[in-house]
Amino acid sequence: MKKITGGVTAAKGFEAAGVEAGIKYQNRLDMALVYSTVPCKAAGTFTTNVVKAAPVLWDMEVVENSPYAQAVVVNSGIANACTGKIGYGYCLETAEAVSEALHIPKESVLVASTGVIGMQLKMDKLKAGVVKLAEAKEGTLEAGHQAAKAIMTTDTVSKEVAVQFDVDGVTVTVGGMCKGSGMIHPNMCTMLGFVTTDIAISKELLTEAVKADVVDTFNMISVDGDTSTNDTLLVLANGMAGNAEITEKGEAYDKFVEALHFVNETLAKKMAGDGEGATALFETIVMNADTKENARVLAKSVICSSLTKAAIYGHDANWGRILCALGYSGVQFDPEVIELFFQSKAGRIQIYKDGCGTDYSEEEATKILSEPEVTVVVDMKMGSETATAWGCDLTYDYVKINADYRS
Amino acid sequence: MKKITGGVTAAKGFEAAGVEAGIKYQNRLDMALVYSTVPCKAAGTFTTNVVKAAPVLWDMEVVENSPYAQAVVVNSGIANACTGKIGYGYCLETAEAVSEALHIPKESVLVASTGVIGMQLKMDKLKAGVVKLAEAKEGTLEAGHQAAKAIMTTDTVSKEVAVQFDVDGVTVTVGGMCKGSGMIHPNMCTMLGFVTTDIAISKELLTEAVKADVVDTFNMISVDGDTSTNDTLLVLANGMAGNAEITEKGEAYDKFVEALHFVNETLAKKMAGDGEGATALFETIVMNADTKENARVLAKSVICSSLTKAAIYGHDANWGRILCALGYSGVQFDPEVIELFFQSKAGRIQIYKDGCGTDYSEEEATKILSEPEVTVVVDMKMGSETATAWGCDLTYDYVKINADYRS
Repeated sequence: MKKITGGVTAAKGFEAAGVEAGIKYQNRLDMALVYSTVPCKAAGTFTTNVVKAAPVLWDMEVVENSPYAQAVVVNSGIANACTGKIGYGYCLETAEAVSEALHIPKESVLVASTGVIGMQLKMDKLKAGVVKLAEAKEGTLEAGHQAAKAIMTTDTVSKEVAVQFDVDGVTVTVGGMCKGSGMIHPNMCTMLGFVTTDIAISKELLTEAVKADVVDTFNMISVDGDTSTNDTLLVLANGMAGNAEITEKGEAYDKFVEALHFVNETLAKKMAGDGEGATALFETIVMNADTKENARVLAKSVICSSLTKAAIYGHDANWGRILCALGYSGVQFDPEVIELFFQSKAGRIQIYKDGCGTDYSEEEATKILSEPEVTVVVDMKMGSETATAWGCDLTYDYVKINADYRS
Repeated sequence: MKKITGGVTAAKGFEAAGVEAGIKYQNRLDMALVYSTVPCKAAGTFTTNVVKAAPVLWDMEVVENSPYAQAVVVNSGIANACTGKIGYGYCLETAEAVSEALHIPKESVLVASTGVIGMQLKMDKLKAGVVKLAEAKEGTLEAGHQAAKAIMTTDTVSKEVAVQFDVDGVTVTVGGMCKGSGMIHPNMCTMLGFVTTDIAISKELLTEAVKADVVDTFNMISVDGDTSTNDTLLVLANGMAGNAEITEKGEAYDKFVEALHFVNETLAKKMAGDGEGATALFETIVMNADTKENARVLAKSVICSSLTKAAIYGHDANWGRILCALGYSGVQFDPEVIELFFQSKAGRIQIYKDGCGTDYSEEEATKILSEPEVTVVVDMKMGSETATAWGCDLTYDYVKINADYRS
């Protein structure tokens, strides 16, 4: 498997576009299209929030009941969540507009929205945007990049990744894009993530691979503990790589799972590192836990702790807050036995052992914590299970962004 | 029942003191004593964090196994948490020092610490502080006030309350003090809370009353979602009011429970309103839920949402975030049916109905949300159970305080 430049248009047969539709933002891209020249198998995971946005309800239907999907249309600025029957109607109208513009069945059009909750879409602008998207779509890297920019809200950078590997002597590509960067505490999947691949694979195996992988990728990140109403990860596979369709587990399936995992993990980390107001990606690795689930719970508890996140922002080795966050996670352990380490590109130090802080150098700790990517390693000494979670620091800018997001 | 001026020294036979011991802070009170001239029945609730501070472990022993308690000694600045066997030894030495100074059994001395995790106490300063406390203790309101000031860390105001009521023709007093204001997400009880009463009551009933009441008071507040290693609520009853000892439930017990509830709720609200960096007390009332527990979970989910808390700071009626927080709480409900209201001293408006935002005035909403105490009312329309939770807004100052707390 090798990493290549690109995103949702990296795989064969996929086109994309990003256009200015003036949905809510002015003078920036705010609508995106991902389109496959042939129908795709589709898999998806969606928010577990009881309050589900209209497009989430529609996409769940499509992924469950349509044999194929062929296009994803996305708008930023307005989330179409808490918009009642009117909002659901608007979502259907959007799918119909795409169906008309691209001459594909309405039931093969996936819809995603992100932005302010509770506001209704302006359908004239949205429909004009759909027409523009249909005209603009291209299979170029640049078109994929435009799409990745169009789905951003408070993100500071667009987020894309792509990889290639061989199956049956043919080259298979998996690429994706996603957006954050607030209301990020995915519980099932992320805010908005779109992955395309030209692999030929059965819908059942595609679904299984996606559902299994989000548990250790998108579900292991958090920016603010708020599970969105719009979380959506969609994976489209159009079969154009030319491999024999994967219909059972084996070497080819394993290779695909490995590539999908790399793409998902890369996108998830990009999202955490670009959390609202963040200055650092904050990674927590819990090793030697008794169960995989306990390792996940412990790692997430640390990256979700507001106090720990504020300390990371201050480059302050306040390890007591990490102990505290492990302690209230709900997992049982012996605080006298576990060990803690800080690490980054600037080095690695042990910070806690035998129930007490070690005699570490505060200066060295501050140096390690001043890097843009910092890691806490927790050795539970209880077993052999490992999990990694990704978050970000808590900063003035997080408060600033969210105290006046609507204005 | 009537509210009176005072705190832990309001009830008969209770004395207190606050002194400068130089534990970590300089030029401020940092050690407190609460003392009863006669032995007391004691009840307590403690943090559920797996990582428990040394004094929590000691107090759990005392409350469980000692027939009586007679003094509580508290230091601020250093939490004596994650300090291993040495830290536990220091806690025992503190109890011994108090035992010697006050001529009471070591097993009747409760100890509490709050402040930085992971640092060891300087025992010479602590022991000198104990001697000063023993000399300074008085039954005056001012002495109680000094104690309330001494236990503060990042609190901006001291927190006291007292009430009186009649039982058997005698006047009974219940008073208390507590401190916040970070790492506040009590799960069993609060950071540090101390309640004294002169009522005569059996230890069994005292314990039952305390454990039942924290569920709807201290356990319903949150500042930052971080359940501390030191959470402790201690209630001492010395019997000096002269009522016939309460040994079974009935009118006298109910009156005591009502007074205890008022004291606990008042202290809990003071703590939430003085959360680190807070500019507003943020209350959420969930009414007409199907079960009491669901009402509690929903109310806490709203006051814990970082995005909602930032919006409250910005006086922004961003009700979508409240819907979102209700939706990810884990409780099932129909978003099309519930209703939302904002209220404060400046008025009350309905903000959400029939699955959509109402046609409310943003100007009026901002006016309501600009008060120092703001309330969200959620009508679930599913049953008749109600719960209230208290939090605070999320501000720049929260980040500032916690990015460099140790320095």
